[in-house]
Amino acid sequence: MRGVLAAVLTPLGADLEADHRRLADHCRWLLANGCDGLSVLGTTGEANSFSVAERVEILENLVAAGIPPATLLPGTGCCAVPDTVRLTRHAVELGTAGVLMLPPFYYKNVGDDGIVGAFSRVIEEVGDTRLRVYLYHFPQMTGVPLGMAIIERLCSRYPGIVVGMKDSSGDLPALLDNARALPGFSVFSGFDDGLLPLLEAGGAGCITAVCNVASRLAADVGLAFRGARAADAARDQARLSAVRAAFSAYPLAAALKEILAMHSGDGGWRRLRPPLAPLARQQTESLCAAFRGLDLRIPPL
Amino acid sequence: MRGVLAAVLTPLGADLEADHRRLADHCRWLLANGCDGLSVLGTTGEANSFSVAERVEILENLVAAGIPPATLLPGTGCCAVPDTVRLTRHAVELGTAGVLMLPPFYYKNVGDDGIVGAFSRVIEEVGDTRLRVYLYHFPQMTGVPLGMAIIERLCSRYPGIVVGMKDSSGDLPALLDNARALPGFSVFSGFDDGLLPLLEAGGAGCITAVCNVASRLAADVGLAFRGARAADAARDQARLSAVRAAFSAYPLAAALKEILAMHSGDGGWRRLRPPLAPLARQQTESLCAAFRGLDLRIPPL
Repeated sequence: MRGVLAAVLTPLGADLEADHRRLADHCRWLLANGCDGLSVLGTTGEANSFSVAERVEILENLVAAGIPPATLLPGTGCCAVPDTVRLTRHAVELGTAGVLMLPPFYYKNVGDDGIVGAFSRVIEEVGDTRLRVYLYHFPQMTGVPLGMAIIERLCSRYPGIVVGMKDSSGDLPALLDNARALPGFSVFSGFDDGLLPLLEAGGAGCITAVCNVASRLAADVGLAFRGARAADAARDQARLSAVRAAFSAYPLAAALKEILAMHSGDGGWRRLRPPLAPLARQQTESLCAAFRGLDLRIPPL
Repeated sequence: MRGVLAAVLTPLGADLEADHRRLADHCRWLLANGCDGLSVLGTTGEANSFSVAERVEILENLVAAGIPPATLLPGTGCCAVPDTVRLTRHAVELGTAGVLMLPPFYYKNVGDDGIVGAFSRVIEEVGDTRLRVYLYHFPQMTGVPLGMAIIERLCSRYPGIVVGMKDSSGDLPALLDNARALPGFSVFSGFDDGLLPLLEAGGAGCITAVCNVASRLAADVGLAFRGARAADAARDQARLSAVRAAFSAYPLAAALKEILAMHSGDGGWRRLRPPLAPLARQQTESLCAAFRGLDLRIPPL
């Protein structure tokens, strides 16, 4: 798995259940508009606001609706190892490209042995050579950082299984260090600003929330980089970064859902599960004003 | 619910599944040795390392083993509202005294509306007048503080349902403010040092991990306080605080399980689910040395 992945939003119905049809439509639209893959059921997709059974159902419906499993990188990391095992096994059986795995994130200040132990137990209980694990480092949300020592131990213990990571720390030097440290390990940036510097450092691409609306811009960065058009790549990265900056004053998932509601004319996109909540009216107005100035040119939904 | 509650440890079998028999024995021993109630399946009980189905099974086994439901205050707060609903409904149907409810704790920096919205949705979906909710404030672990504005909104929206809280912040002035602010609201200290000051401020008692081994000392504090023997109460509080201080250098659940393993001669007590891990040998030795100096006099198991 390489390239541009959206951290896919999960559209909801009137009772805040997942809207399977609208999610499949959104995924198809993303694949047609710059996405190489789809990281469904991650932070942006409100995965941790769904039960394990709901997450299984969401993924199954997506595959049944024709989204190729090889494009999917679902999040499967829960607090409880048995839950992570169940979701990971299910994803492997559906044939997904891999899974994006948070560490158990309730307990803080746990030692490296405990974190490595949790990932190890999941990998060994799933016990499937088809498994591909991408570690998900998001210390601001989890409070459980995945330092280099943990990553190296897991890579050397499970070669060919622990194959990459998503780094959402926002720490660019650490991101680039990670990409350079482990040859063959696929590092994805979880923040849009990191995409071009990461590609230059040999990284794999990006997995970001903003790619729900701006995957074309991220794809342009990758195309220019691969074509060795450095000036174009820098310009496209600046455009992508400007879009991200326009969201910086708002809760990200709510703001993205607002943009999709506006763009599609479908107000149902605004729904979020608590504890997340839609934008307040004043936020919506200032967000919309900011986006009119950006000339984002989102393709028709 | 008032008085001394242990935040009950969950003993594990060889495959790290819950050991139902040993848990019931431990609960009986706690009730016979100073505990007025049992807060099972909380932070200390590794609740978030168990699946929802396992948590249901643990609680059912405990009641089937004869632990009176009216002594139980199980933790039920998960990241996903449907999980919290299921666990809370199950606890109500079993007749527990109430539930101890974490806010959804994956997403950080969410607004008060989102937190109030999540609790409200749980309470309304459970929809049972027998429900008694104790809010669980533990910002160091959750990253999601429950400020006074949230507590007041929930109390006024659900009078007789949202009836108390456990405050594990370690912030004594805030704990006492909470106890004084809402008449009839039952505030429990989640830290041993807070017990006597909280009783003096009209609070309900304590729910702590150290009560797995020192519930007699906590009960003595309460007895002396109710008997208006101020000097005795201060002395007993100092003893309890000294026990807590002896644990301060160690991961708490692991250290408590080590003490119970030593005291009972049953090494099985040492098991924890990842990401938690047993103490290293050197930690065990220094912990044991510290405890020999304390003269804790744990009653026979």
